Amino acid sequence: MKLHGYFRSSASYRVRIALNLKGLRVEHLAHHLRRGEQRDPSYLAINPQGLVPTLQDDSGAIITQSLAIIEWLDETHPEPPLLPPDALRRAKVRAFAEVLACDTHPVQNLKILARLRELGLKEDQVTAWAGWANREGLAACEKLIAGEQARFCFGDAPGLADLCLVPQLANARRFGVDVNAFPRLLKVEAVAKALPAFADAAPDKQPDAE
Amino acid sequence: MKLHGYFRSSASYRVRIALNLKGLRVEHLAHHLRRGEQRDPSYLAINPQGLVPTLQDDSGAIITQSLAIIEWLDETHPEPPLLPPDALRRAKVRAFAEVLACDTHPVQNLKILARLRELGLKEDQVTAWAGWANREGLAACEKLIAGEQARFCFGDAPGLADLCLVPQLANARRFGVDVNAFPRLLKVEAVAKALPAFADAAPDKQPDAE
Repeated sequence: MKLHGYFRSSASYRVRIALNLKGLRVEHLAHHLRRGEQRDPSYLAINPQGLVPTLQDDSGAIITQSLAIIEWLDETHPEPPLLPPDALRRAKVRAFAEVLACDTHPVQNLKILARLRELGLKEDQVTAWAGWANREGLAACEKLIAGEQARFCFGDAPGLADLCLVPQLANARRFGVDVNAFPRLLKVEAVAKALPAFADAAPDKQPDAE
Repeated sequence: MKLHGYFRSSASYRVRIALNLKGLRVEHLAHHLRRGEQRDPSYLAINPQGLVPTLQDDSGAIITQSLAIIEWLDETHPEPPLLPPDALRRAKVRAFAEVLACDTHPVQNLKILARLRELGLKEDQVTAWAGWANREGLAACEKLIAGEQARFCFGDAPGLADLCLVPQLANARRFGVDVNAFPRLLKVEAVAKALPAFADAAPDKQPDAE
């Protein structure tokens, strides 16, 4: 398999963690987002959004969107599972993941921040916007797992919620968010980051890191 | 079951279609977003994001995030299925849905547009922003199903992709997007809207419609 990604893309980071948790080795193809490589026609032909990540399986089949890729990995490589067996618990995990993957990250990605600059916003306003989006999303996530007691977000093994959380916390710090406001999330992060699957997926460990 | 929603919320609209396709009757509880009812403490206690929709099942269990709700409905009420049986096809459907539910709708929802106004953007700039987000998302979706031949986005029965598409096209029109640029999507929309499950879920058919 091949993963088209970018070291700092938090959506790529999620998929890297999922691949590591599944013990799958893939070829990593870097597309430098700040240089606009994701808008190269050859890349747009496989990902019409011009976003990373994109996964190509061994038959050449193409899957876009990080959550769709992760669900596919979980369905085709079930061990270890990234979602719990119970339907209601699965829904809780997916909802947590979607707070970050739908309502947080897309509101503060490179494309949106570039658009804000084009509209005349100053750099401190752009950073404040990204910080706001991260705070809103993480604050909701902190509440969503307030009643959970286990080591990870939902249980004693890492899964979909955790692999969305860790990259988002990295983004939040980059935008100056005081993440100490989220003690439950930080506790999960510390446990997750101690695992090689998470540590090896970190942006600064990727070959394209700057 | 109870669905907390708002007539014009496209995320609520998606869930209404899913419930109708499953033949499930629920109690609809409207939260008027423009009046800020979603920020009432009693609602924030069940949905810490202060967003709609939220589903409460008969046992009182709470599920947030429209895609998580729809996947839960599909797992607990499997007929008719909203996702195809094949893993790769499921991934394609989810990716299409996530282009809209992650990268399009959250970038142009009420909360984001209000934030843009607070930052001093004029009304025409805010509308242009929302139009841009819709055009980008729908253009990608048009390409994602360019090779599909069936009546709906992915096959001859309606599913997750279609129930995300129809509400998003409604949004796009509200923001002045020329949707004729997306002939394949419009063809699917016409077939979908002829079904009562879609027609009855439309914003103007809801009791809280203005």
